[in-house]
Amino acid sequence: MKVSGDGGHDDRARQLLCEMLRLFYANNWLSGTGGGICGFDAEHRLLVAPTGVHKETLRPGDFFVIDPASGDVLQPADEERLRPSECAGVFCTVIGSRDAGAVMHSHALDAVLAADLGDEWLTVRGFEMLKGIPGVISSDEHRVPIVENTPREAELVHGVEQALADVRFSETHAVLVRDHGAYIWGKDIWETKKHAEVYHWLFEAVRVRRS
Amino acid sequence: MKVSGDGGHDDRARQLLCEMLRLFYANNWLSGTGGGICGFDAEHRLLVAPTGVHKETLRPGDFFVIDPASGDVLQPADEERLRPSECAGVFCTVIGSRDAGAVMHSHALDAVLAADLGDEWLTVRGFEMLKGIPGVISSDEHRVPIVENTPREAELVHGVEQALADVRFSETHAVLVRDHGAYIWGKDIWETKKHAEVYHWLFEAVRVRRS
Amino acid sequence: MKVSGDGGHDDRARQLLCEMLRLFYANNWLSGTGGGICGFDAEHRLLVAPTGVHKETLRPGDFFVIDPASGDVLQPADEERLRPSECAGVFCTVIGSRDAGAVMHSHALDAVLAADLGDEWLTVRGFEMLKGIPGVISSDEHRVPIVENTPREAELVHGVEQALADVRFSETHAVLVRDHGAYIWGKDIWETKKHAEVYHWLFEAVRVRRS
Amino acid sequence: MKVSGDGGHDDRARQLLCEMLRLFYANNWLSGTGGGICGFDAEHRLLVAPTGVHKETLRPGDFFVIDPASGDVLQPADEERLRPSECAGVFCTVIGSRDAGAVMHSHALDAVLAADLGDEWLTVRGFEMLKGIPGVISSDEHRVPIVENTPREAELVHGVEQALADVRFSETHAVLVRDHGAYIWGKDIWETKKHAEVYHWLFEAVRVRRS
Repeated sequence: MKVSGDGGHDDRARQLLCEMLRLFYANNWLSGTGGGICGFDAEHRLLVAPTGVHKETLRPGDFFVIDPASGDVLQPADEERLRPSECAGVFCTVIGSRDAGAVMHSHALDAVLAADLGDEWLTVRGFEMLKGIPGVISSDEHRVPIVENTPREAELVHGVEQALADVRFSETHAVLVRDHGAYIWGKDIWETKKHAEVYHWLFEAVRVRRS
Repeated sequence: MKVSGDGGHDDRARQLLCEMLRLFYANNWLSGTGGGICGFDAEHRLLVAPTGVHKETLRPGDFFVIDPASGDVLQPADEERLRPSECAGVFCTVIGSRDAGAVMHSHALDAVLAADLGDEWLTVRGFEMLKGIPGVISSDEHRVPIVENTPREAELVHGVEQALADVRFSETHAVLVRDHGAYIWGKDIWETKKHAEVYHWLFEAVRVRRS
Repeated sequence: MKVSGDGGHDDRARQLLCEMLRLFYANNWLSGTGGGICGFDAEHRLLVAPTGVHKETLRPGDFFVIDPASGDVLQPADEERLRPSECAGVFCTVIGSRDAGAVMHSHALDAVLAADLGDEWLTVRGFEMLKGIPGVISSDEHRVPIVENTPREAELVHGVEQALADVRFSETHAVLVRDHGAYIWGKDIWETKKHAEVYHWLFEAVRVRRS
Repeated sequence: MKVSGDGGHDDRARQLLCEMLRLFYANNWLSGTGGGICGFDAEHRLLVAPTGVHKETLRPGDFFVIDPASGDVLQPADEERLRPSECAGVFCTVIGSRDAGAVMHSHALDAVLAADLGDEWLTVRGFEMLKGIPGVISSDEHRVPIVENTPREAELVHGVEQALADVRFSETHAVLVRDHGAYIWGKDIWETKKHAEVYHWLFEAVRVRRS
């Protein structure tokens, strides 16, 4: 139900992003104002959630429009007090390297614990759920890169860039960040939701099966 | 509240199947567009959910009508882009062998972990919850067959057929699929919901008690 | 909102019992149509839920009025197909011995696993949560009796009677049933909800702390 | 939507506190009528929840107005049967020592189990989530003081005062109470919600990672 005449604030992509944030929050992936999301609207403008706010309370006007190439803010959120997510740099990196149409950032405990199981990457094998990742079949040995955490979120960009350029991780649609969480993406918002469910299921499965 | 004049799209069975999919999704049994459901409507037509979609978002017009004997599609879903569930073959096999009125397919992690505990079958004993399965009493040693996973869902039919023909598993209302999940059925949609709750409870119980 | 002129079907106690069943179901205490509840209405008539139905779907007219002294059905449920809960015998025993105003029966996995930790009783100590039980302080060693399971629910009455007559268990407001679940009660429906939350918290706490 | 002319019963702070109690209850932090909350309204009057009631059912008129300096009741709840939370003493202590604008008291099992891991304090290190606490960075070694439980809640004041005066705990926004739970605060109700999510995430994380 598009009612805006002021730059698309109430368009379906913004509402869908709000719905996804409520869903992810209910899954304990966005506790304590952490995590975030970005995705393109119908006019192919990149919408990025603000930082430091309770993500399940976001409204369509709370998103920033960002240039994915430069990271510049093209249109601010309606409220002046809001600042764009500190994940914006990693979001733009993923979009640039993988042609993603949406990216979510999770602070799920299962993502942190899964990263504890690997050094440079987490190996996932032996689950039908792997089929939920494009190009992966259930007998594959799937590698999810693990990037070391940095003091500031923006500094993660370098590690994420390296991981995405690494041919060993060509199939992955997620990057784990040690002690921190994960970035997960897809070709659009709905596929990103699907991949978020698939990877969080796998993160828990790998840990519980090994313990 | 039947309002359709176009083949029963809004009839109660279709709405009930949608409700069950939302419930099963909330239980983490259908993560990442996985899993599925089928059941008969009032005219005894077999309704099967589509594949590859977010199951909690399904609407009454999204189901296929399938011939349970041949597996042929008798009536497609309203939207052309939808394809019938890849579970359809197993669904038809269960209906043919066990006279089931509905079957659900779960991707629950507890089903996968329960299958880790057995070779050809999972033994469940010592739980009052066993009474929830027709013909089983709480002192029984109940066997749930475990079928090995296959690259494609349709290829599971052979293993499921063999399990259902095996007299050792005559009481079961579920088949576990290794690394994958479970198929669970009942005489109608509501009994299938009951059995899904009973078996998922038992899958968790068996694992936690042994650990 | 009392609208009935037919014996109080829509009175507040019946609606409250339905609300509690939905809440308990959401807690996974009533999976697979298991478990149950009873409580007195404003006219001090004992309302008992039916057996074998999905408890979260109950409506005010689905309860039986039972004589707590004899166990006789004074007024059936509206629908003829319904039968009173098989817990009715235990419910009446608890009401007779402990002057309870409501009793709930749980099939929670945590209740089953807590009973695994004891022989004749489960000892709970060292939790502030114990204060939630009348007459118990947080430094008490609280004993919850464990009754052995029986093939039929009605046969549990003898074991429950013995446990309730045992002075070692004079403070308890719950009886565990091995491999099966628990009965928990209070002076009215709301206190029974409180005690159900307290005991289920303790059942989980005792198990997790010991493991 | 402020509709009251009788002392602000329906003002936004009271409604927000009710909303937080429902959220915290859904997280299993307030089981069995336990736990509580306090916060300032727009006129800087301290609102404190009542004791011994099902916290998720509270309405705006159910709060007490308390003088945070003396602990005296300035305005009772609407219903005479209500008594102010026994946490009021600790709430006032936290407000006095830390200039908090809201405090919540949790009975979460994860808080109890986290306190099991320490003697005078719980050490939390190696989690990005630590950034959710003001003044703390992810490489910090964060200390959460552990206070021994007392027979009566009011007697906790002394231990909490000592912990808050201890320079080793100058960064903490939470106090653990052994066998009991935690007090968590922030500069206002929303920051208290944020910190509650951050600390409960960390309490679970510390325990699961060590086990």
